[in-house]
Amino acid sequence: MTTVARNADAESDPRVKAVFDDIRATRKSDFINNFWHYLTFDPKLLEDTWYGVKAVMAEPSALDPLTKELIYIAVSITNSCSYCVHSHTAAARAKGMTEAMHADLLRVVATAGRTNQLLNGLQVPVDPVFNAE
Amino acid sequence: MTTVARNADAESDPRVKAVFDDIRATRKSDFINNFWHYLTFDPKLLEDTWYGVKAVMAEPSALDPLTKELIYIAVSITNSCSYCVHSHTAAARAKGMTEAMHADLLRVVATAGRTNQLLNGLQVPVDPVFNAE
Amino acid sequence: MTTVARNADAESDPRVKAVFDDIRATRKSDFINNFWHYLTFDPKLLEDTWYGVKAVMAEPSALDPLTKELIYIAVSITNSCSYCVHSHTAAARAKGMTEAMHADLLRVVATAGRTNQLLNGLQVPVDPVFNAE
Amino acid sequence: MTTVARNADAESDPRVKAVFDDIRATRKSDFINNFWHYLTFDPKLLEDTWYGVKAVMAEPSALDPLTKELIYIAVSITNSCSYCVHSHTAAARAKGMTEAMHADLLRVVATAGRTNQLLNGLQVPVDPVFNAE
Amino acid sequence: MTTVARNADAESDPRVKAVFDDIRATRKSDFINNFWHYLTFDPKLLEDTWYGVKAVMAEPSALDPLTKELIYIAVSITNSCSYCVHSHTAAARAKGMTEAMHADLLRVVATAGRTNQLLNGLQVPVDPVFNAE
Amino acid sequence: MTTVARNADAESDPRVKAVFDDIRATRKSDFINNFWHYLTFDPKLLEDTWYGVKAVMAEPSALDPLTKELIYIAVSITNSCSYCVHSHTAAARAKGMTEAMHADLLRVVATAGRTNQLLNGLQVPVDPVFNAE
Repeated sequence: MTTVARNADAESDPRVKAVFDDIRATRKSDFINNFWHYLTFDPKLLEDTWYGVKAVMAEPSALDPLTKELIYIAVSITNSCSYCVHSHTAAARAKGMTEAMHADLLRVVATAGRTNQLLNGLQVPVDPVFNAE
Repeated sequence: MTTVARNADAESDPRVKAVFDDIRATRKSDFINNFWHYLTFDPKLLEDTWYGVKAVMAEPSALDPLTKELIYIAVSITNSCSYCVHSHTAAARAKGMTEAMHADLLRVVATAGRTNQLLNGLQVPVDPVFNAE
Repeated sequence: MTTVARNADAESDPRVKAVFDDIRATRKSDFINNFWHYLTFDPKLLEDTWYGVKAVMAEPSALDPLTKELIYIAVSITNSCSYCVHSHTAAARAKGMTEAMHADLLRVVATAGRTNQLLNGLQVPVDPVFNAE
Repeated sequence: MTTVARNADAESDPRVKAVFDDIRATRKSDFINNFWHYLTFDPKLLEDTWYGVKAVMAEPSALDPLTKELIYIAVSITNSCSYCVHSHTAAARAKGMTEAMHADLLRVVATAGRTNQLLNGLQVPVDPVFNAE
Repeated sequence: MTTVARNADAESDPRVKAVFDDIRATRKSDFINNFWHYLTFDPKLLEDTWYGVKAVMAEPSALDPLTKELIYIAVSITNSCSYCVHSHTAAARAKGMTEAMHADLLRVVATAGRTNQLLNGLQVPVDPVFNAE
Repeated sequence: MTTVARNADAESDPRVKAVFDDIRATRKSDFINNFWHYLTFDPKLLEDTWYGVKAVMAEPSALDPLTKELIYIAVSITNSCSYCVHSHTAAARAKGMTEAMHADLLRVVATAGRTNQLLNGLQVPVDPVFNAE
């Protein structure tokens, strides 16, 4: 169940088609996952989202593509976004995440979840040495 | 302001001293940050927390130490744990995080925060191809 | 799957019937959605919840009914409450939310999710000018 | 810094005075903590909040008062509400929470934070046996 | 305390200066709040963030500017982003939010927080009628 | 749908078998719920998670077993972890949670969700009297 209807004919809109073509070219694959299909109900939202995600995730930057996927998964787990966890776990695998790396990611994410709770419970003052200024 | 009192004399307890000595040896530094000081109100909680964090973060594993810190920061930001963001940003810097990497981390974390909201708002069905089974 | 059983006969309890009748009268509809059905396992919890929600959402106040629904959806998305996102998106539509307004809501919610992450990552000090005192 | 101004003269409003008197009588103390002072900017919001909290927390119910405070702290930690963690930790102490119980609370809260992350990362299907229907 | 240092001389970088000039022109004010100052450590992150926020919040769209600020505050409260709550509450006031509207916003946000918890606790199945497809 | 495959033959690994045997012995039941089955993809993660959870939840401590389950549910609801809410609600029932206690738990969790939002919205300063130092 979703909150907007999927439009099977969305690509008849040239703005949607341009985005979908760019997704296919960027990923070198014909497959377009559901997220982008459902965003077609508002072509501007589709454009802004895709070009924003692409600029961060698909263009070379200080962090390598796999590390960026791992960070993306970590946030998605913490925000309890089921779709995001699924799609970015698949993306991380496609970029080389092994089973051992997946387990390690979950270990770190779980450890952070554990100590985040302790610190929020203790309300410990931040050590002055951590101040960047 | 905190929810437990800091005990300046905590190291007179041999269990606390053993943990503090291990923190110093592991980090090759005399500095013990506030988190561990405040956990001394319950030596068992201190022990479990330190040895748990150490096993995940300080021992060799599938992911390198800096990547693990970046994931830790991502979770801490999403959980809005101020102390955790400060301490792990400092730890990431100590392990080689450059300013460009820090900006890139924030860029990915912000992009995930953005699309997590969109997916939670759209309630898009997960594509069957993402299923690991 | 749920954590409490739905009681098909709940309206035989006069306290439940009184609440259900008030829901129908308030909404001018015979339909009672699942949330209220499942709350019937504890009539007091049902009463407190319905009359609390009604007082805030169904009575005239400083904000108009549609604006209140948009705010409700924004919180529900951020808390990752799937049922709440579905029911309040439907409610907002019934109160006049157009597709363009829905897209705009998601755009703002996504932008807030994005900058919330940046600010929680940067730990920027609050400008004194924002202080209401 | 706050988002509404504190009104030192709030009790000159009889609605505010009635709530404050009820807080004092309920708690058998003259002290009114900041939360209630800041809510006085809208007497109706103050009334609804106080009488709602009182009905749940100060009246006899299936769970004992201390258990209810521990649950309240657990939610407040997870929502990263600093003020709430402070005020309810103090309330739990006043109702008999020992240091050992406090440590145990934090241990459970941290363990839940840890496994919540694992489950949100694994997206494990719910066992049919857990279904209450 | 922050995780990046504020650069008092940031406007000597023409990219930073261009963004700051656009902030001033858009807001018709010389004041630049801390968020933008701290983002100057990475001019690209500053540019992407400002132009992204501006496109959503400062350009005419389906929702009016004040409604968008109220939604922004709702998300920021739920994500426990202190800075964001402060800055957008101030922005909402500047756009006409009265004290009664502020109280109403908080009332809706609190009611959503309350029922979100109930639904996440009950795990109620979504009514088919809410499905947009 | 899950992010790792379930291995029907996992118990042929002696490390997995040892954990599963300990789960059965601890719970005095042959049933192993899905969480543990899916963790078998990494025996070390399975071991650390089970022995960590067991030490906190199954061994005598300052809080009684049922209170610990209620706290666990409260965190899981707030983190929107569907599986965790289901499994720990079932566990609490097995440890004696009545329907009245369940309703009371939800009432407290909902009230905390409500006031957490108000406090995060008001940004009220913590009363000095709450400081544990």
